[in-house]
Amino acid sequence: MPASIGEFELIARYFSRPVHRADLGAGDDCALLPAPPSGEQIAISTDMLVEGRHFLPGADPEALGHKALAVNLSDLAAVGATPLAFTLALALPDADPRWLEPFSCGLYALADRHAIELIGGDTTRGPRTICITVLGTVPRGQALLRSGARDGDDIWISGTVGDARLALGDRRGEWTLDSTARAAAFDRMDRPEPRIGLARALRGIAHAAIDVSDGLLADLGHVLEQSRVGAVVEIDRCPAGPALAGQPIDRRRLCQLAGGDDYELLFTAPPRQRDAVQAAADACGVPVTRIGRIDAGPGLRLMDDDGRVADNVYPGFDHFRAD
Amino acid sequence: MPASIGEFELIARYFSRPVHRADLGAGDDCALLPAPPSGEQIAISTDMLVEGRHFLPGADPEALGHKALAVNLSDLAAVGATPLAFTLALALPDADPRWLEPFSCGLYALADRHAIELIGGDTTRGPRTICITVLGTVPRGQALLRSGARDGDDIWISGTVGDARLALGDRRGEWTLDSTARAAAFDRMDRPEPRIGLARALRGIAHAAIDVSDGLLADLGHVLEQSRVGAVVEIDRCPAGPALAGQPIDRRRLCQLAGGDDYELLFTAPPRQRDAVQAAADACGVPVTRIGRIDAGPGLRLMDDDGRVADNVYPGFDHFRAD
Repeated sequence: MPASIGEFELIARYFSRPVHRADLGAGDDCALLPAPPSGEQIAISTDMLVEGRHFLPGADPEALGHKALAVNLSDLAAVGATPLAFTLALALPDADPRWLEPFSCGLYALADRHAIELIGGDTTRGPRTICITVLGTVPRGQALLRSGARDGDDIWISGTVGDARLALGDRRGEWTLDSTARAAAFDRMDRPEPRIGLARALRGIAHAAIDVSDGLLADLGHVLEQSRVGAVVEIDRCPAGPALAGQPIDRRRLCQLAGGDDYELLFTAPPRQRDAVQAAADACGVPVTRIGRIDAGPGLRLMDDDGRVADNVYPGFDHFRAD
Repeated sequence: MPASIGEFELIARYFSRPVHRADLGAGDDCALLPAPPSGEQIAISTDMLVEGRHFLPGADPEALGHKALAVNLSDLAAVGATPLAFTLALALPDADPRWLEPFSCGLYALADRHAIELIGGDTTRGPRTICITVLGTVPRGQALLRSGARDGDDIWISGTVGDARLALGDRRGEWTLDSTARAAAFDRMDRPEPRIGLARALRGIAHAAIDVSDGLLADLGHVLEQSRVGAVVEIDRCPAGPALAGQPIDRRRLCQLAGGDDYELLFTAPPRQRDAVQAAADACGVPVTRIGRIDAGPGLRLMDDDGRVADNVYPGFDHFRAD
């Protein structure tokens, strides 16, 4: 069994790759980044993942390295930013190379794919907790904000939604999936793909965007609230992957509308941009689906395939309300 | 007893003050900052504080709000950066207004004094953990780095050191302080003052800097290692506050040389800059003391008041070695 290592050796061994875009990476009191061009804004977001809350004890550390960075990159995607750099603060019960090695591999593999550099961090002993802060850049005035939705906009969603909630329900014993569906659903929950490329391609085309983390309707609700508009969502239009498509309709709706953790991009764009949206999606190889319309009516209304109004019984996730 | 509140209400009530220097603060997927002028670099640091490790259960939340930001600001100080913005990720066992209210007050009070804005964050349920990431700016090439010390430099320390370790020893039962000394020592441990102003004034004067968090000798060791130089420290020259000055010499040395958590600025500067260093210190109202000299000899050597060589029996703090 490999021996536990010290704090400084831990950082040196697993989190000290050379940086190329930063002027100074880990190892001093601060990292240093060159100022971006004056026409750019810096986009910043931070997310904390806690063992027992966001992931189970014993979770695959390689997948966890991926997911911890993915959920942060997804916040950059949600404003259409280009990833630049990130910091990592890590509390661990012990400095175990058998956990650190695969965790850092999962983290760096995703970082390399999106050309984002680890530039600094902090390690301490404590209940396993991962806090990542990401920095990106976006041309001034082109960020896709929650407040940008306009009356008449189409509502679009990338990829498919609901698989992460489907996996969670299986884990919780709410239902039992067959082995094929289980593998597909857990892969979606454990390895979300931040929609960085699509979101960048939608700058200047989309009006508003958010990533689906709390639940599709809950996250759309944030857009409506900040944009001071209403919406109709055609709930049976929401795209499902193969695992979810074979489930009973009530379960499918629950997973798609209330389930978070898919990290797909929900965005709005005016109908005249439909071809441009589709072209952006095609160029990125990410399917997109229109699922509703922004309007000036009050709140969020749901409509099923038969044109009937459905009740919104799909509350979003709140860390201090839910268990 | 006030009721517990939800995640979104928590953010809205305690962490959503308007921003002035940022283009967009909390409430969207990312915060947005204008790019700093092209002659500037962005300095970034992150620190995580864990209950039971960095602070005790039941610690005064107002002091904790101060300290959580202070230790991060101290990292900006250590490179001579000007504070700009910070994010806050918070895991809490519950959303209790009796904790949140004073915590946010302590945090904002220090933030306001240094004109640094809270621009975003994350809240989740979990073991009480505070992770702050700070951003600052520094003119290109003027950052005070650990790697900048040169043969012949004086070694300086700001303020007084050792009081935080003196308080810790009292708490741990290693010794018992009288009430005056205890109050003074705990105040230093709980309310460190980041040396932002002094560090900025030392840009262009000092060669290297670090903040004392792991222990004076340990942190000086980081400077020596990265600068590839050695040093002699005159251990009895280290400045002590009134509480520590009255302690037995062995305890005083232990607290000053091995004790971290004081967040004073340790820096090196060439002897020809002595007047400039003193003038910078006077302008900021922060005393500074010369405690040794950088040289080309091997490692770190200690010398007492009688000119005798002393053993270095003062290891620094390592989160995965110490308990």
